[in-house]
Amino acid sequence: MDQYNGYIGRMIDQLSSLPGIGTKSAQRLAYHILSIPIEKVRELADSMVDAKENIRYCKECLTLTDEEICPICANQKRNHKQIMVVENPRDLAAYEKTGKYEGVYHVLHGAISPMLGIGPADIKLTELMRRLQGDVDEVIIATNSSLEGETTAMYISKLIKPTGIKVSRIASGVPVGGDLEYIDEVTLLRALEGRTEI
Amino acid sequence: MDQYNGYIGRMIDQLSSLPGIGTKSAQRLAYHILSIPIEKVRELADSMVDAKENIRYCKECLTLTDEEICPICANQKRNHKQIMVVENPRDLAAYEKTGKYEGVYHVLHGAISPMLGIGPADIKLTELMRRLQGDVDEVIIATNSSLEGETTAMYISKLIKPTGIKVSRIASGVPVGGDLEYIDEVTLLRALEGRTEI
Repeated sequence: MDQYNGYIGRMIDQLSSLPGIGTKSAQRLAYHILSIPIEKVRELADSMVDAKENIRYCKECLTLTDEEICPICANQKRNHKQIMVVENPRDLAAYEKTGKYEGVYHVLHGAISPMLGIGPADIKLTELMRRLQGDVDEVIIATNSSLEGETTAMYISKLIKPTGIKVSRIASGVPVGGDLEYIDEVTLLRALEGRTEI
Repeated sequence: MDQYNGYIGRMIDQLSSLPGIGTKSAQRLAYHILSIPIEKVRELADSMVDAKENIRYCKECLTLTDEEICPICANQKRNHKQIMVVENPRDLAAYEKTGKYEGVYHVLHGAISPMLGIGPADIKLTELMRRLQGDVDEVIIATNSSLEGETTAMYISKLIKPTGIKVSRIASGVPVGGDLEYIDEVTLLRALEGRTEI
């Protein structure tokens, strides 16, 4: 395609390298970018480079942050004795959005996956164990409800048990508002097993 | 959400200002960008700024191009006496992909829309009429099959008729592979009206 040589072609290639963006979307985005003022394009481009250059891991919980210590870990009103372990910063963001969790987090940056060759040494477990040497009451494991997430949860649980610190796992079950007929059997069984008296 | 302050928040805002990218996708893209090497982020950012800075309208057909004259208009093997009028460079790209059209194009950069207050003076019609003073056999109107596209087609047709140049309109009908039961009535009627003997 002649007209996708040069600068437009390069931009379309770059955009379609992003996850979830196919050639058609990349094309649409590229023409949008060409249609907005250059200052706006610079703002967009700079926001990406600036973020990448300035974001680092929080020294405490390892989430991505602008500061040495992220705002959550720096907040003295949060319960620093309660640590929720999540796979990545997006999961942390999801729990923060509930606005109800008062503890702090620990970001693993991955999950154990024998299939993908990701072992315990490849996720931030050493850092978690180091934090547990401090004053911690409970570790809540909030890894995903996938095979990798469950494997990781099991592994962490066994690792922490000897320390005597309470370890819990977030509940699996039917999503609120979920229609039973569309939910897979494994989830339905989990919901049954996890039933509570009312 | 505390953790979306600063650089990450700014990047998410910027990304979600793009068409078709909601907050969730912007978040996913942002974390992806933070996970790739800085050189890759710079390549992505530069590709957008470079394109915006270097792309201009082709002096002939007004499509977006790196050069004074786009590769299609510069190609002497194309039939310069046949001009296909399209609304935007994406439509041009779509027809180029067929690989079968041998003529050249004219990009209107819009369509007449009384609803949106876009009149004939707001699209590149003066430039089209100027081109028709040269040696042109046929103008093929390939504006979209929408109300705006049809209005524009009608307007252009009336404008060109007095010059004696042949004006044609691409066919409307059932898309190839389209299942009749899922196609709207207007399209079905168009397909009927446009029937040809076989």
